[in-house]
Amino acid sequence: MVKIIVDAMGGDNAPEEIVIGAVQAVNADNDVKVVLVGKKEEIEKSLSGIEYDASRVEIVDAAQVISNDESPTMAIKTKKDSSLVKAFDSLNEDGAALVSCGATGAVLVGAFMKAGRIKGVSRPALAPMLPTLTGGRVVLCDCGANVDCKPLHLVHFAIMASEYAKVMLGVEDPRVGLLNNGVEAHKGNELVKETYDILKRTEGINFVGNCEARDLLSGDFDVVVADGFNGNIALKSNEGAAEAVVKLILEGVGEGGLRIKLGAALMKPLLKSVKKRMDYNAYGGACFLGVNKVVVKSHGASKRKSVTASVLQAKELASRNICEEIRIGIVAFNQNNAATAQNEE
Amino acid sequence: MVKIIVDAMGGDNAPEEIVIGAVQAVNADNDVKVVLVGKKEEIEKSLSGIEYDASRVEIVDAAQVISNDESPTMAIKTKKDSSLVKAFDSLNEDGAALVSCGATGAVLVGAFMKAGRIKGVSRPALAPMLPTLTGGRVVLCDCGANVDCKPLHLVHFAIMASEYAKVMLGVEDPRVGLLNNGVEAHKGNELVKETYDILKRTEGINFVGNCEARDLLSGDFDVVVADGFNGNIALKSNEGAAEAVVKLILEGVGEGGLRIKLGAALMKPLLKSVKKRMDYNAYGGACFLGVNKVVVKSHGASKRKSVTASVLQAKELASRNICEEIRIGIVAFNQNNAATAQNEE
Repeated sequence: MVKIIVDAMGGDNAPEEIVIGAVQAVNADNDVKVVLVGKKEEIEKSLSGIEYDASRVEIVDAAQVISNDESPTMAIKTKKDSSLVKAFDSLNEDGAALVSCGATGAVLVGAFMKAGRIKGVSRPALAPMLPTLTGGRVVLCDCGANVDCKPLHLVHFAIMASEYAKVMLGVEDPRVGLLNNGVEAHKGNELVKETYDILKRTEGINFVGNCEARDLLSGDFDVVVADGFNGNIALKSNEGAAEAVVKLILEGVGEGGLRIKLGAALMKPLLKSVKKRMDYNAYGGACFLGVNKVVVKSHGASKRKSVTASVLQAKELASRNICEEIRIGIVAFNQNNAATAQNEE
Repeated sequence: MVKIIVDAMGGDNAPEEIVIGAVQAVNADNDVKVVLVGKKEEIEKSLSGIEYDASRVEIVDAAQVISNDESPTMAIKTKKDSSLVKAFDSLNEDGAALVSCGATGAVLVGAFMKAGRIKGVSRPALAPMLPTLTGGRVVLCDCGANVDCKPLHLVHFAIMASEYAKVMLGVEDPRVGLLNNGVEAHKGNELVKETYDILKRTEGINFVGNCEARDLLSGDFDVVVADGFNGNIALKSNEGAAEAVVKLILEGVGEGGLRIKLGAALMKPLLKSVKKRMDYNAYGGACFLGVNKVVVKSHGASKRKSVTASVLQAKELASRNICEEIRIGIVAFNQNNAATAQNEE
């Protein structure tokens, strides 16, 4: 049995969609047990009328909720009775993984302070997966946890995200790219140029070269490494541009004549499936790599389906001992590169 | 008469599409004169059979061509008889502006070395325009000329791009945003946090705050400022994601049944217009701001229409004395911020 702690109050659609999504994961996988943390009465209300195995759904009462507007550090430190802090407490007790759709900053700070950094990891990092044009997915790491980075941090991201890709994408030797402003080896700012040189000589990382932002979704990479600032820009640009195209099409249909409207009606299933395929939130959450327990941050707008996907994802990662795999990979790198590791941490 | 120097050999479709595009600009605007620089015989061949006012089309012979694979600095220094170097020579002689679809690096190095940096400008920067969802355009500056930046550089980009937006977008007081990983004032890496503080207190810049990458096309900004590395990531992510959506739709149509195919046929004009609207290359080129003459870099894949747009854009910028406006704006800022300017240049 794998015990997944769920922050039932985090996200725009909490608690109802979170609770239903979590219970659907229980129904889908006999090895999953969920602990729903939040306002007990509201959780019970959301549970009423759904069928599930009650022995695998537990509730932990928590009176407070952490919002997006709060300082993450202050919130984690002072709101001891919040759903998120209590969820981390349950995680530390006997949980295998934690899932939250709450404020990203608070989830990251909580993971860092409560679950703790894996010894040897210079910086934990946030790693969402994006759908590729070839029907697969690509792990983008980091995406916002670390806005100012050194080369060692990016190399650690590559090691952690490679372990993550092995589990999530089922590839043996993930192809790692470095987000850059050109494909040539000499391209980039100081940070990525130095990172390039280390990645190139590091055994155990299948470094295939620079990845231009326009090739992020090409399917040529299983992992793309970036500092948190650049990764965030790439992630959100992709989101914005895909939404822009869809919006322009819908506007055009709205303003269009009968032919256009008829065409749109006929094409509707396709347009919907394209929109869904571009929506990286549908594939589960972003994993916070480099802390001692599995922490999955699902999108704030998540509905039940995403929550179910995130809980099952968290279960898979915990079952496969992702944290231990990351620890082993990082320790091996640090031992072989003692000088680099010490210099830059 | 405004004399526009055109690198006739630069770009994937040179010289024919370049030559025809340039001549069509001559035909469209009686105040435009073009100087076509490149292999004389090939240019004459491309000109044969087109009607135009021969008094406003000049040819300057140049035997060499600079390719994308060459070191930009070496190429500019050694290929004295290349179309690009000779174009810069013509520009310095009596040209008002230069247009090239050639290798970006070589165009930037050429502009820097041959036209020269405007006195007071810390770093010239590349500024393309992207189409917004509200039907307008947004200037993104820098997009790759400067991959490692200091706050002063970004502030100078804001001043230069504001002057550029006044001419190109016809707005009096361009709204300037700072590309960031969140909208809140405290967000960002060290570079953008410091830049934020300077932009906020600088008179003459209409700074409206941080711009998340997903809001780049929202229409809420006339100018978005970034270091060249991040600007490049944002630009190319947008390009990649928009292309991905279009590709997925086309694939779906190809694999779809009769209903989907009929729908697509009916919707074709709309899909084409959306694709065109998202294609920032259709709106002319990216201007290299901060050098003493107008230099417009049009996309390598430009066809005649883009070339015409770029020549007319270059003419407009030269007529409106954009370089002098930039100089005045930068001098005023540097005088009022002597400490900042000296510290960081």
